[in-house]
Amino acid sequence: MDNTIFSKFTPKEKKFFPLLKEIVEVIKSAADLMLEFVEKGSPENAAEYYKKIKEQEHKGDEISNKVFDELNTTFITPFDREDIHLLANTLDDITDDINSAAKRIFLYKPQEIPQGSRELVLLIKKDAELIEKAVEELDVLKKSRKRVSQYCSELHIIENKADDVYDNFLIQLFEKQHNGVELIKQKEIMSELEKATDDAEYVGKIIKTIIVKYA
Amino acid sequence: MDNTIFSKFTPKEKKFFPLLKEIVEVIKSAADLMLEFVEKGSPENAAEYYKKIKEQEHKGDEISNKVFDELNTTFITPFDREDIHLLANTLDDITDDINSAAKRIFLYKPQEIPQGSRELVLLIKKDAELIEKAVEELDVLKKSRKRVSQYCSELHIIENKADDVYDNFLIQLFEKQHNGVELIKQKEIMSELEKATDDAEYVGKIIKTIIVKYA
Amino acid sequence: MDNTIFSKFTPKEKKFFPLLKEIVEVIKSAADLMLEFVEKGSPENAAEYYKKIKEQEHKGDEISNKVFDELNTTFITPFDREDIHLLANTLDDITDDINSAAKRIFLYKPQEIPQGSRELVLLIKKDAELIEKAVEELDVLKKSRKRVSQYCSELHIIENKADDVYDNFLIQLFEKQHNGVELIKQKEIMSELEKATDDAEYVGKIIKTIIVKYA
Repeated sequence: MDNTIFSKFTPKEKKFFPLLKEIVEVIKSAADLMLEFVEKGSPENAAEYYKKIKEQEHKGDEISNKVFDELNTTFITPFDREDIHLLANTLDDITDDINSAAKRIFLYKPQEIPQGSRELVLLIKKDAELIEKAVEELDVLKKSRKRVSQYCSELHIIENKADDVYDNFLIQLFEKQHNGVELIKQKEIMSELEKATDDAEYVGKIIKTIIVKYA
Repeated sequence: MDNTIFSKFTPKEKKFFPLLKEIVEVIKSAADLMLEFVEKGSPENAAEYYKKIKEQEHKGDEISNKVFDELNTTFITPFDREDIHLLANTLDDITDDINSAAKRIFLYKPQEIPQGSRELVLLIKKDAELIEKAVEELDVLKKSRKRVSQYCSELHIIENKADDVYDNFLIQLFEKQHNGVELIKQKEIMSELEKATDDAEYVGKIIKTIIVKYA
Repeated sequence: MDNTIFSKFTPKEKKFFPLLKEIVEVIKSAADLMLEFVEKGSPENAAEYYKKIKEQEHKGDEISNKVFDELNTTFITPFDREDIHLLANTLDDITDDINSAAKRIFLYKPQEIPQGSRELVLLIKKDAELIEKAVEELDVLKKSRKRVSQYCSELHIIENKADDVYDNFLIQLFEKQHNGVELIKQKEIMSELEKATDDAEYVGKIIKTIIVKYA
């Protein structure tokens, strides 16, 4: 970055978009690791997968903190400061949810990785892709409003699909799993993955609110 | 609607109130259907009740989307756009909760419809009536502030009552139901109905925030 | 309070800080009572402890209502009205969570008070101390921004610790408790205590948002 007098006039606000994109990258990495975990996870490698996912969670925290620091030192922001803050935090919540699910597999040591978890992680990956597209167009929101709204609506649809996956998983579980403790373990793991899609939907609502505010 | 030159000067903002009232109508219809479901539901008619309630859920989604579209094309709004957006979304969440409870009865096939579910649905119906009254006076908030605050406080009281119903239901369940799977099924159904009263209370908080903001 | 002409020019806004501090006092009292409850609770004294904690919950509600009334009659507020409203409400949620946990011990009559509950209540007490410090400096936010942000970050760290306590509690429970009903009772009690630390973290986020907004 050049520090000439001219750079002072460069719109400072542009720096938030790269940070938001970085948080989305973290979600994507965490989701990729989680997919591997639910596909290839075993009692032997669970600690390792959890460790890798936890690293992403830390990274997400760091970037969120950077957003907060930037917000406190930047005079002009592209949207209201509080909206950027809420958006960054909620994006980060998705990584937290993935991390919690991984932690629970590692700690609870269920007899098997919940059936249906792969389906949920695939939906989370779709969420991440849609969020990525939406965030990429945030800086030209005036032009891309319609498209971005569409991505947000798709986040809502995915959340409904995740609800169905979760409910069908529970039906199977209720039928087959007669060990109450194992049943609760599996349910607790899956509910965190389902929560990730709730938070992704909430990201969609926040972005829609931003659209509405600056319409 | 006449499209004469004069209609252009009609305050556009008034169109949000009818849409909000429509969402409240959907909540009321969903709650009425749910009351019938918990009173007369059986394995034979569960699919049918769920289908009817799901229709209301779709309708609610559609009206919410309309609110969003209107917010994006309307210059002057009675309150800040983001407040209308949040209010419409949270109202719609109540219908979603009712729909989730219905879906779970249909899918989980519990041995019986949870005792206490009728009581919770009656509280949801009361919520809907209070919300209806509050929404009806939103457009004259300056005059009706006191009364609307009172409705919101009653939503808080109802939520406390719903907590009590839910807790008493659980005590009974813990005592009588020794089948772990059946216990969890019943708990999951009831928790969605209880969540509807949480969301109704949240509607009250949002309206109170609007009151505070425009005090 | 003197009612001379001069008092009219005293900045009215200062009255919110004492009310917020009062709500924090209520959280502290509820947490102290809860600590005693989990340390010395028995089937004989559970009703009494619950009653005392419920009194704090009522007190919290009353002060929140006072904040709302003040917000509606005060022209100038130190922050945006809606931020004070949200902060007061969320502070009050912490007391509500403690009250719910106490109610569940009283109503569910678990075989024993959950192991790990003491640890969680100690974390809630730490939360309350940090919140107290943060709220005390809210009126000089321009100067204390860095320190207050630090308190908020610590609320986030405590929430992570509470997650760990909760997860470790569950692991123990899964291993030792083979009575499904007792397991669910204990889990439900602990989840409310854990929720108190979630809400404390949310208080931190709200304060950080206020910082960001007035940066």
